[in-house]
Amino acid sequence: MRVIVLGADGYLGWPTALHLSAKGHDVVAADSLIRRRWDLRCGTESLVPIAGMKRRVARWKELTGKQIIWERLDLMSLPDTTALIAQYTPDVVVHFAEQRSAPYSMISGPHAVETQVNNVVGTLNLLFALRESAPNCHLVKLGTMGEYGTPNIDIEEGFIEIEHNGRKDRLPYPKQPGSFYHLSKVHDSHNIMFTCRAWGLRATDLNQGVVYGSGTPETDMHSELRTRFDYDDIWGTVLNRFCAQSAVGHALTVYGKGGQTRGFLDIRDTVRCVELAALNPPDSGEFRVFNQFTEQYSVSQLAERVKAARSAHGLETTITHLPNPRTDMEAHYYKAKHQRLLDLGLVPHNLDDSLIDHVIGLVEHYKRRIKPELFAPRVDWRFGGRGKIKAAPTGRRRVAIAPSVARRG
Amino acid sequence: MRVIVLGADGYLGWPTALHLSAKGHDVVAADSLIRRRWDLRCGTESLVPIAGMKRRVARWKELTGKQIIWERLDLMSLPDTTALIAQYTPDVVVHFAEQRSAPYSMISGPHAVETQVNNVVGTLNLLFALRESAPNCHLVKLGTMGEYGTPNIDIEEGFIEIEHNGRKDRLPYPKQPGSFYHLSKVHDSHNIMFTCRAWGLRATDLNQGVVYGSGTPETDMHSELRTRFDYDDIWGTVLNRFCAQSAVGHALTVYGKGGQTRGFLDIRDTVRCVELAALNPPDSGEFRVFNQFTEQYSVSQLAERVKAARSAHGLETTITHLPNPRTDMEAHYYKAKHQRLLDLGLVPHNLDDSLIDHVIGLVEHYKRRIKPELFAPRVDWRFGGRGKIKAAPTGRRRVAIAPSVARRG
Repeated sequence: MRVIVLGADGYLGWPTALHLSAKGHDVVAADSLIRRRWDLRCGTESLVPIAGMKRRVARWKELTGKQIIWERLDLMSLPDTTALIAQYTPDVVVHFAEQRSAPYSMISGPHAVETQVNNVVGTLNLLFALRESAPNCHLVKLGTMGEYGTPNIDIEEGFIEIEHNGRKDRLPYPKQPGSFYHLSKVHDSHNIMFTCRAWGLRATDLNQGVVYGSGTPETDMHSELRTRFDYDDIWGTVLNRFCAQSAVGHALTVYGKGGQTRGFLDIRDTVRCVELAALNPPDSGEFRVFNQFTEQYSVSQLAERVKAARSAHGLETTITHLPNPRTDMEAHYYKAKHQRLLDLGLVPHNLDDSLIDHVIGLVEHYKRRIKPELFAPRVDWRFGGRGKIKAAPTGRRRVAIAPSVARRG
Repeated sequence: MRVIVLGADGYLGWPTALHLSAKGHDVVAADSLIRRRWDLRCGTESLVPIAGMKRRVARWKELTGKQIIWERLDLMSLPDTTALIAQYTPDVVVHFAEQRSAPYSMISGPHAVETQVNNVVGTLNLLFALRESAPNCHLVKLGTMGEYGTPNIDIEEGFIEIEHNGRKDRLPYPKQPGSFYHLSKVHDSHNIMFTCRAWGLRATDLNQGVVYGSGTPETDMHSELRTRFDYDDIWGTVLNRFCAQSAVGHALTVYGKGGQTRGFLDIRDTVRCVELAALNPPDSGEFRVFNQFTEQYSVSQLAERVKAARSAHGLETTITHLPNPRTDMEAHYYKAKHQRLLDLGLVPHNLDDSLIDHVIGLVEHYKRRIKPELFAPRVDWRFGGRGKIKAAPTGRRRVAIAPSVARRG
């Protein structure tokens, strides 16, 4: 397959590009590199030093003989996006290229707007580019399990059969997202579903759970192939943050009661899930949804798992409960289907102590780079951000939102 | 009540501002006036000549002694929006200020992007302004029945009780909108619902059907108080277009089979529904949805109604079927609830021949202003726009999508 990975500079985009290349696919890795600028703005930084994209692909070529083509691309430009799609006419586009932090999206009005404009417009431009230049291409889009929220009934994979007043239909599963970021993914899902129906595009929406882990066999091959590892309040996912906290002897900080339950998966399963979806395309016109996670945990259960893994080495870990900065429910029913990727052959890496040990080991290696002040949440869902979050260096970004000419004018 | 009407220069915004003022409420009428620029771009124009906003409010004052305050405001500016809300601390904000044409949104990628950015960002800015300066204000937001699409089960008002695998929940009704415009309203609904839950805002989403009619008792008081009347392919709603076609002896153009069924209402009911919603606010934190229409018709049924009304005067009317430029279903189940506004006291104006006669009479008065070439659809849902749709005069519009400072930085 010829695959374009959008957002290839990110935590998951880069390992996915490597994994697909290792499996023999032709990979184009594209990114605007905006994630590195967002780090500067938030005073955050990957714990693991990461090489630039040119160096990464050169090192990969040297070690494996395989060529990943690197392209700098901002999806906010429709002409650039269309040109890239037309140039490579890919079989598959894997789309990770979004602002993916819920706390970031809740800092202020402009951050909410930036998140939704970046994600919605980038995806719209991609859809128009596919219609124009690669209508048979399979779009593999990263969504989130957070699109569903925490309903009091079982969560299905994207659609639900509803019987009502004696009639039946299979309808999109109702969405109750919990941040402006999660909302942006719901907006994307609706936009993509519509274009499959109206234009005959084909798409898989991967509603992914919370990812943990520090890398994959490919990223572990060389220090210059490593992917980023975030442990801070804005970008760090919860288990990675707990591992970082325990490595430096910091208490594990649980928000509220810790009964918040979510789906989780190992980063090694993310890259495999993406490949499984890509290898098994939907029909033209089909919009399908896979729930991409392997196990459910509450936040408190995860904290206990980390504590137990440390205890096995005779190390003590404290767990503290902070006031919950978010507005999600702290105790609720949660049961979500995740069958379709298993049906395609996914063999999950379940969470075990050795993974926790491995991540903690990595954190210990880079211990001196940790800024413990970044553990504490700086963004409150009700009031916005506080503390050290810098202004944007450029202040504004131009977006073409007024049409220049009609398509067939 | 002190009410701000956003989008007060539009087909419905202006009559709403007048109606609320006539009923004794303090009204601030705000608009960016972009709708008049969109007309220039599309080669379209209101059939009925419309006065500028300053002249309108002056004439209203002169005739009634009542003061409507006119404010030019672009919701794309968060500071300007916040300043307006802080200045007037309204009890109610009625929000019509969106790009509201489905065909316009389907012309091209940039038109889709412009529609979604304008509508989503404008509403986000308004939500942040309310949180900041008027958290108890009641947001009355114009949505559309088109958010639901045409499911094979009855459409409820915003939420549906679902029983699934032995458990129950009341969840947002699944959405299947049929254009980038309709999608933008779904995005808005999700964003507003979230802020009610997270911030305790209160909002009513009026999922309005297709409006017909040329005015209200207030707009009929003087030629300078008239509201716009659109009969063209981009902005004209279907019954108004049929009336215009029949007035000039043009065939009524039905798209496809004409079995497309929707909810409809008289413009005089629109203004009354908005007032009823405003007078009966939801609780703090509540997001409620009213389906705002009074009768269901298929497009063919409407054409037949116009034909029959003409026939009563001995006039012959032809009905022709054009290839459907849209991708909606041309025959489908449709039954939508619309009880909650009736419960609040709405007494509907049902569609009758005298209304059709009245609208046709108005069109005949302005007959020489009709451009029959604007009856034919220029926008195809699959391929986009063709023909005379001009480039934007300025080409680009600046949007602040990068945060300047964190709210509590």
